[in-house]
Amino acid sequence: MNPSAEVLKTVHIFDSTLRDGAQGEGISFSVQDKLHIVKALDELGVAFIEAGNPGSNPKDLEFFEEVKKMQLKTARLVAFGATRRKDLAVTEDVNLASLLSAGTEWVCIFGKTWDFQVKEILRASLDENLSMIRDTMRYLTEQGRAVLYDAEHFFDGYRANPEYAMKTLAAAREGGALALVLCDTNGGTLPDEVQSVTKRVVQEFGVPVGIHCHNDTGMAVASSIMSVTGGATQVQGTLLGFGERTGNANLSTIMANLTLKMGIPCLPEGRIADLTPICRRLAEIANITLENGMPYVGYNAFAHKAGMHIDAVTKNTTAYEHVPPASVGNERTFLMSEVAGRSMIIEKIKKFDADINKDSPIAATIVSRVKELEHQGYQFEGAEGTFELLVRKSMGKYKPFFDLHYYKVIGEQPRAEGGYTSFAQIKIGVEDEMAIMAGEGDGPVHALDCALRKALERFYPAVKHIRLTDFKVRVLDSRSATAAKVRVLIESTDGEEVWTTVGVSTDLIEASWIALVDSFEFKLISDLEKRLHPYA
Amino acid sequence: MNPSAEVLKTVHIFDSTLRDGAQGEGISFSVQDKLHIVKALDELGVAFIEAGNPGSNPKDLEFFEEVKKMQLKTARLVAFGATRRKDLAVTEDVNLASLLSAGTEWVCIFGKTWDFQVKEILRASLDENLSMIRDTMRYLTEQGRAVLYDAEHFFDGYRANPEYAMKTLAAAREGGALALVLCDTNGGTLPDEVQSVTKRVVQEFGVPVGIHCHNDTGMAVASSIMSVTGGATQVQGTLLGFGERTGNANLSTIMANLTLKMGIPCLPEGRIADLTPICRRLAEIANITLENGMPYVGYNAFAHKAGMHIDAVTKNTTAYEHVPPASVGNERTFLMSEVAGRSMIIEKIKKFDADINKDSPIAATIVSRVKELEHQGYQFEGAEGTFELLVRKSMGKYKPFFDLHYYKVIGEQPRAEGGYTSFAQIKIGVEDEMAIMAGEGDGPVHALDCALRKALERFYPAVKHIRLTDFKVRVLDSRSATAAKVRVLIESTDGEEVWTTVGVSTDLIEASWIALVDSFEFKLISDLEKRLHPYA
Repeated sequence: MNPSAEVLKTVHIFDSTLRDGAQGEGISFSVQDKLHIVKALDELGVAFIEAGNPGSNPKDLEFFEEVKKMQLKTARLVAFGATRRKDLAVTEDVNLASLLSAGTEWVCIFGKTWDFQVKEILRASLDENLSMIRDTMRYLTEQGRAVLYDAEHFFDGYRANPEYAMKTLAAAREGGALALVLCDTNGGTLPDEVQSVTKRVVQEFGVPVGIHCHNDTGMAVASSIMSVTGGATQVQGTLLGFGERTGNANLSTIMANLTLKMGIPCLPEGRIADLTPICRRLAEIANITLENGMPYVGYNAFAHKAGMHIDAVTKNTTAYEHVPPASVGNERTFLMSEVAGRSMIIEKIKKFDADINKDSPIAATIVSRVKELEHQGYQFEGAEGTFELLVRKSMGKYKPFFDLHYYKVIGEQPRAEGGYTSFAQIKIGVEDEMAIMAGEGDGPVHALDCALRKALERFYPAVKHIRLTDFKVRVLDSRSATAAKVRVLIESTDGEEVWTTVGVSTDLIEASWIALVDSFEFKLISDLEKRLHPYA
Repeated sequence: MNPSAEVLKTVHIFDSTLRDGAQGEGISFSVQDKLHIVKALDELGVAFIEAGNPGSNPKDLEFFEEVKKMQLKTARLVAFGATRRKDLAVTEDVNLASLLSAGTEWVCIFGKTWDFQVKEILRASLDENLSMIRDTMRYLTEQGRAVLYDAEHFFDGYRANPEYAMKTLAAAREGGALALVLCDTNGGTLPDEVQSVTKRVVQEFGVPVGIHCHNDTGMAVASSIMSVTGGATQVQGTLLGFGERTGNANLSTIMANLTLKMGIPCLPEGRIADLTPICRRLAEIANITLENGMPYVGYNAFAHKAGMHIDAVTKNTTAYEHVPPASVGNERTFLMSEVAGRSMIIEKIKKFDADINKDSPIAATIVSRVKELEHQGYQFEGAEGTFELLVRKSMGKYKPFFDLHYYKVIGEQPRAEGGYTSFAQIKIGVEDEMAIMAGEGDGPVHALDCALRKALERFYPAVKHIRLTDFKVRVLDSRSATAAKVRVLIESTDGEEVWTTVGVSTDLIEASWIALVDSFEFKLISDLEKRLHPYA
């Protein structure tokens, strides 16, 4: 047996974020993105990373050149392609030639299983398809590649014509495939059927079997898991479930389930604890908002909102947590809301004054202020900076650093000289002094940010170190269209700390202004605290 | 047997969007929202709608008063509460009194199953908990209510102490519970365990059994389905999977799976075809963006992006679709993207000129223009209006309706008289004439919209009928903060048609302007076409 095949014997992960994941809506990776993703997946410890075909476009070619320079710890890179074209010999097929040019040890080839697809889509005879599979496997094996076979539409094909479906797998084996991967390409198969069919293939062929599910019935995770209990050892999917239509099987969920709930290791020892940070990094690279409710790794996976649940979790963590959040590198959070009751707000207030408890009058004041602002459209769930300022203001531990006399922002078309569209003028007062400053920028908020920064710098040089790192706009009642209320979230850093602030208004500039002012004030008050209590 | 219990015998749906769903992040329903949701769920045909406790807050009290005036077709409203408090008689418990005051025929009561929770969280003895369950059931039954029992933490409790867990169910039965609902409160149980435990409860008690899952292992749908195959007849969840942490079992997915894939009816005949529009309406009411990849009902559930898949689906729809999109009221879409190849763009162009095919030179021009704009941050996936204009422009089937000479938008603080923050002035030319107009508004885009509308009305009275119905802002490279590129999507209607347009710029005002102009022009050109080809 090919010594490379050792990895196939135990349960292991095959990530297709770079290939099948790229079919997801809004997903488009640059070469640099792809290299970052390979690094992240390798750190996590997946066994295989599927990375497309160098022949499909010049970007992929560049990627395969660059990736060769990387030192991977555990992951093997896999080039992906189809069986040879029906009218060509393997040596004449340019796609196979480009696949070989990737220079990877491993390749994965997909072929047709479903008789109807062979006839209707491929327009080939059933025997011709078997030759295409067998020839392709054999050729790549002879070229020194370790070859995996993806049986496309396996479950639909098996339902329609089980005998032919099994023949396609036999052809792949005859050609030298080291593993047979059963793909539920349409995503319509139910978990128990996935399990029973996997069992039959494992029994019949006695070689490593893989599973590749899509989430069209909302059960890709369950089907993958049940395929493993049916004998499959390779689980294909994408780390965050990216993929066409409803997405591919979400590997982050599957890996946590296998490792923590079923005692089936699928990553190197201990790596599951890195799951959340790596998933969030991947979401950043893909420039995708990680679904808050994603099992194990979402921001809300261990978030509690119901007041009763919060009370119980505070008493005993297993009350509403199925695994410890830290086991997957995530953490417990308490969401602010009208349902939340006071426990969670009190928890947060204690950070400022350990003596405050549920019955303190100040607690009631803050809770009612939070509810009032929530009613206006504020949300403090992702805006700890603004929440902290609110607590300080309510407790009298705050004084404003400046007064706004006015600002004016002008946006215009055609663009002015220099290409800017927006200009801001601002007048602020700090104690007895005034500053009037102007700024220009790409858009009104950028111009206003520049003007405010210049005005404050004279009094508070520390604002020079503030960098805005994220800016999000959420239209709240989007049905009111351009007169709708908007919520602006700003994330800032001074290179050490990161804080987020929020503003709400029907005017986007005003909402941004509120969040901007909170960001600057948060920095100034934190610095002041540090000077007053340097060792706190 | 209580005649009300007839409904419990066959598989039926229990929706908790208004109760458990309200625990989801960012979910907050007004009384009006709740009434709209009841109406939507009743139209769909769910058997039960759980709606909280009138005693928990004044909003719920008002809701129960209002909902009594509604004529429901199939749904029964359920009030929800806990077993009596440990130190009170049932008649002294204010929560039970307020539950009765809701005046619903059905009530659902949750109680503790897990011995550890009884001792640690409830701080009651195990026998005391059994009395609390039994007494509460008996009292509510005596008061003429049809009572369901939610066994909280059932699977964790059963794992820890199966004998005691079964005793809690026996106590509920003794008190008169018509159905026993097994809750996987922590969401950590795996589907096969859910199935085997359900089987045991069904066998032991011989009464209707329900299942209530959370999605913490990403398998709530599968667990619910496997509970049904294990004998459960009531499936609890929330229509779109809203809920605490990772959410509740997604009923839209479950209903489609049961009906279309398993032949188990759970809604009145034919209603599953209304699933998508009702889900989207509920998302609108909840002011939540429906997850694009949600099985069956998401915008991408039947979307194809890979060029090869699009080719295949065009040849035969079953190639990459597990059910016909129309069976759940959804539709097939083709996503625009660099991977998509030309097929899909050609499909869309054919709408304008049936003679265009893959090899037409104009097709290449449009494809390259689309790719160029995508590179700039445009996305045509949700902006058919702008795409149609782009095709028209490329084909020479377009002339601008007006020229912009300039616009100036001023935003200021403090707010001016009348409370407005924003003012716009615009100068446009239509053929030889000029119009200079001004507008004021809540925010710069609103002011600009008002000014442009006034300027155009003189020349094109039809713009009066355009109403902007949605406005979305997406910050593209949010890490560039206030200088980031933004994409603005505008949805408009004239009361008959709905169209969406898109603009991208580093300046939010400019991006909005681009989308706004496209929206007005789309309407004007469509009207012109209708005049030229009234019967097309």
